[in-house]
Amino acid sequence: MSNHPLEEILHPKSIAVVGASDTGRGGGFLTPLQNSGYQGTIYPVNPKYKMVGGLPAYPRVSAIPGPVDYVISSIPAQQVLDLVEACGKKGVKGLHLFTARFSETGRKEASDLEKEILKRAREYGIRIIGPNCMGVYYPRERIVFNDGMPMEPGKIGLISQSGQVVGEIVSFAGQQGVRFSKAISYGNALDFNECDYLDYFAQDPETEIILLYIEGVRDGKRFPEALKKAAAVKPVLIVKGGRGNAGTRATVSHTASLAGSQQVWEALVRQSGAVNVSTLEDLVDLAVAFNFLPPATGRKLAVLGGSGGSSVLSADQCEEAGLEVIPLPQDIRDKLKEAGSPIWDWIGNPADFSISMGDHEAAFQIGYLMAEHPSFDSLMVFVHGPWRRVKNFSLPNHLQPYKQMGSFNKPTVFVYQEMRNQEKEDETAAKIRMELKEKLIEWNMAVYPTINRAARALSGFIGFYENRK
Amino acid sequence: MSNHPLEEILHPKSIAVVGASDTGRGGGFLTPLQNSGYQGTIYPVNPKYKMVGGLPAYPRVSAIPGPVDYVISSIPAQQVLDLVEACGKKGVKGLHLFTARFSETGRKEASDLEKEILKRAREYGIRIIGPNCMGVYYPRERIVFNDGMPMEPGKIGLISQSGQVVGEIVSFAGQQGVRFSKAISYGNALDFNECDYLDYFAQDPETEIILLYIEGVRDGKRFPEALKKAAAVKPVLIVKGGRGNAGTRATVSHTASLAGSQQVWEALVRQSGAVNVSTLEDLVDLAVAFNFLPPATGRKLAVLGGSGGSSVLSADQCEEAGLEVIPLPQDIRDKLKEAGSPIWDWIGNPADFSISMGDHEAAFQIGYLMAEHPSFDSLMVFVHGPWRRVKNFSLPNHLQPYKQMGSFNKPTVFVYQEMRNQEKEDETAAKIRMELKEKLIEWNMAVYPTINRAARALSGFIGFYENRK
Repeated sequence: MSNHPLEEILHPKSIAVVGASDTGRGGGFLTPLQNSGYQGTIYPVNPKYKMVGGLPAYPRVSAIPGPVDYVISSIPAQQVLDLVEACGKKGVKGLHLFTARFSETGRKEASDLEKEILKRAREYGIRIIGPNCMGVYYPRERIVFNDGMPMEPGKIGLISQSGQVVGEIVSFAGQQGVRFSKAISYGNALDFNECDYLDYFAQDPETEIILLYIEGVRDGKRFPEALKKAAAVKPVLIVKGGRGNAGTRATVSHTASLAGSQQVWEALVRQSGAVNVSTLEDLVDLAVAFNFLPPATGRKLAVLGGSGGSSVLSADQCEEAGLEVIPLPQDIRDKLKEAGSPIWDWIGNPADFSISMGDHEAAFQIGYLMAEHPSFDSLMVFVHGPWRRVKNFSLPNHLQPYKQMGSFNKPTVFVYQEMRNQEKEDETAAKIRMELKEKLIEWNMAVYPTINRAARALSGFIGFYENRK
Repeated sequence: MSNHPLEEILHPKSIAVVGASDTGRGGGFLTPLQNSGYQGTIYPVNPKYKMVGGLPAYPRVSAIPGPVDYVISSIPAQQVLDLVEACGKKGVKGLHLFTARFSETGRKEASDLEKEILKRAREYGIRIIGPNCMGVYYPRERIVFNDGMPMEPGKIGLISQSGQVVGEIVSFAGQQGVRFSKAISYGNALDFNECDYLDYFAQDPETEIILLYIEGVRDGKRFPEALKKAAAVKPVLIVKGGRGNAGTRATVSHTASLAGSQQVWEALVRQSGAVNVSTLEDLVDLAVAFNFLPPATGRKLAVLGGSGGSSVLSADQCEEAGLEVIPLPQDIRDKLKEAGSPIWDWIGNPADFSISMGDHEAAFQIGYLMAEHPSFDSLMVFVHGPWRRVKNFSLPNHLQPYKQMGSFNKPTVFVYQEMRNQEKEDETAAKIRMELKEKLIEWNMAVYPTINRAARALSGFIGFYENRK
C-alpha cells in the first residue's frame, strides 16, 4: 500500500452513514453498502430512529461503540461543523460530505461555512472528500454509492467532479465490458483536489488508465505538473465540463469552480500528453479502446461487413473520422482469384457483405486475408446475425470467425449496430447479434454500438500513439 | 391520383413474385406481402414448385390466369430478358428487379445485359424499378418488403438507392415515432431514376417531407432542376453516400453510379434549398424534427433538467452544436423570488434538476416560465423517472408536466437518455422513462435518445428556416 493519504481512507474497516434513514438519500448510501457485501462494520447514525436498514442506529457519532474510520455525511450543511467536531474526537480519518448547498450556491455565508469546516477538519487531521459529491466507488473493497454498480474490479480509474457522471460512466462503459479499479466523485474539492486525485491514481498499481471529468481546477499552480506526471506513466483522458458560456455559468453553480479559457485548457492538456475528449460518450468509447486494444501503429483500416448503403456510408464515416480506408491490395485479389472466389474482381474495402451473398465463411476468408496483410494497421468488423434463412444454423459456428478476426494482434473494433433490428426475415437475428456482442466482450474485444462511435474511438486511440512519437 | 407514371405502378391490383420459394429471398418478398394484408392478388411464380407460401405457384408468368400489374423478380440476372418478354406479353406495367449482379459488378457483359433489358422493356412499355434494389414500401397499399414494417402511414417520403438504408431508416425513425407515406429503394436506376422519384414525391399529396439517400446521380443534366423543384415545395433532406475515396469506390460496386466531387455536390444541394446531411442517424433525427416541430424562429434555447455534470455538459454540447444557451432572464428570477423559491438566485439555464432537489413540480414551474418567455426560441427538456424514493408516486401526475412543456408552440425536443439506466435507487425509474418516451411520441412530440443528437437535430432544423429567409 502506498503512503498517499488517500490510501488509508480508501480501506476503511468501518463506515458511519450520518443522516441515514429508510427513505431519502441517507438510505441511498446505506442500502447499497449493505447489498454490496462490504466487509467492514456499517453504523447508521440518526437521532430520529432506533433502527435503520435493519441495523441499530446511533443518535450521534460519539455514541458508536467501536472505532470509526470513514464517515458519509448526508445531513444539512448547517449541522456539518458539529459533525466535524464529533468525528475529530472519535478519531475518524476520512469524511465524505455528500452534503451540498455550500459554495456552489454562489452565496457568501455558504462559502464561509465551507472554509470553517476545512479549518476545523485540519485541526483534527480529518481529510475530506467533497462536499457536494457522491464519494467513492471501489469494487475491490465493495464500497459503492448506488445499487447495481459492478463488483468485478477493472483497470480504469475515474476521477470526477460530478457524481452523476461517475454513475453514467460506470454504467455506460459497463455495457461495453469496461470495469473500474476505483472511481471518486469529489464535488467542490474543498480538501483533496484534482491534483491529489491525479497523484493518487498515477501511483495506484490497480489503475492502468485514468479518466478525468473536471469542471474547474482548484489548484491551478500545481495542476499542470500533476497532470504531466500522471500522463507520463498512464494514458489520461479528460472531459472538461463548462467549455462554453452557459457551461461556465453552470459550472459555478454546480461545483463552485472557476473555469478557464477553453483554448488555454486544451493546449495545456495536449502538452501534458493527456487526451482532450468532448463528451461522456467519447470518453466511454476511448476507455473501451484503451482497455481492450493493442497499441496502434497507423491509420490504414480494413472494413469487413456492412451491406449496400451501410457499407458505402461506413467508408465515409471512417474517412471523415480520420481513418484511411485504402483500396484492397492486388495480392489479396490474386489470392481470392486463385482460390476460385467468384467476386475476386468486384469485392473491395469495405468488403461489402452483401456481395458475398450472405456466405459467412467466404466473407471471413476475405477478412482474414485483410487482417494478415501488412498494409492494414487496424480492422473494423460488423457484427451480424445469419444473413437469411440459413439451413443448419449453429451459433458456435457463426461466432467462431469473429473470434478469429480478433486474434491478429491489430487494433480491431467490432460494431454491433444496436439499432438495426429490422432483420425480420429471421427474427432471431437481432437476438443473436446481442449474444454475439456479449461473447465478444467475454473474449476481451472492443465493441461499439455504431460505426461513428467505433470510427471516432479508433481514430482518437491512434492519435494518442501518434502524439507519443 | 396524379398522372405521374409511378402512380399507377404503386397501386397494383395484383403482384407476381417471380422466383418465389419457401426458403431464400424470393420467399422474403412473398411472406411479408402475405402477412401485411395486401388486398390485391399475389401470384408466386416458380417452375420448381406446385405451392409456395401456401399459394398455388405458376411455372411461368404466362401461366398466370388473371391480369398481372406488378412483378417482383428475384431470379438470376441471366433469366431476366426472358422475364421481360413474358411480362410484355402479359401486359405487366411495373417490374421491380430485386435481381442484382448487373452493372454494379463493374463487368462489361453485365452492363450490356442491363442495357438490353431496358431496351426490351421500353418496347413493351414496361417501367422498371431497380435493378439491385428492395423496391417499394407503401403502407397505405400494404406493400412491404420486410416483415414487421409499420402499417400506419405517415407524412415522410423516402427515396433511397440502397434497400438496406430503407430498412434501417424505417426502423430507426420508427423508434422515434416517425411514419412514412412511401419509401422506394431504386438501386441501379436503370429506368426510373432519382429525378423521376423526386418529381413524383414533390407532387405526391401523401408526402410532406422528402428524404433522399443517393450514391450517384444517373441523370446529371436533369437533377439540379428536379431537386430545386422538389425543395421549393417540401423540405428535402439528403444523405450522399460515397463522399470519400473509399466510398466512391464502394459506390461503383454497390449501385454502379458515378459519384461527383463532394464540394460541388454540397454547393448544389445548398443552392437548391435542400439540406445536406452526413449520416443516417442525423437523417432520422432531422426527420423527427421536421415531422413533429413547429417552424423555428431562432437559436436561443432553454434547457430544463439534467443534473450536475450532465447539466453542465448539456450546455457545452448545445453550444457546440450552434445553439445559444443564454442566461436565465432577470424577470424570471424576480418571479421565482416572488413565488418564494429558495433557489431563485442560484438556478440558471440549463435549469439543473438537482438544484431543485428532485422537486418535480418546482422544477417544471421554472420550465414553464422559460417556455413562456419571449427570449427563448426553443426548448430542450430531459426526461427522467422519479428523482428518489417518492411517496405516493403517480405516473399520470409525473407525466403531466412534460405534456405541458410540449404545449407552448415552440420547437421543443425531449431527451430520454436511453443509456442512463443506473438509477438503481428506484429500479422502476428507467422503465418509467421509457413509458414516458412512448407517451411523448403518442402526444406527437420530438424525442431523442441523447443530448448530442437532440442538439444537432434542433440546430439543423433551425438552420433550414434561417436559409429560407
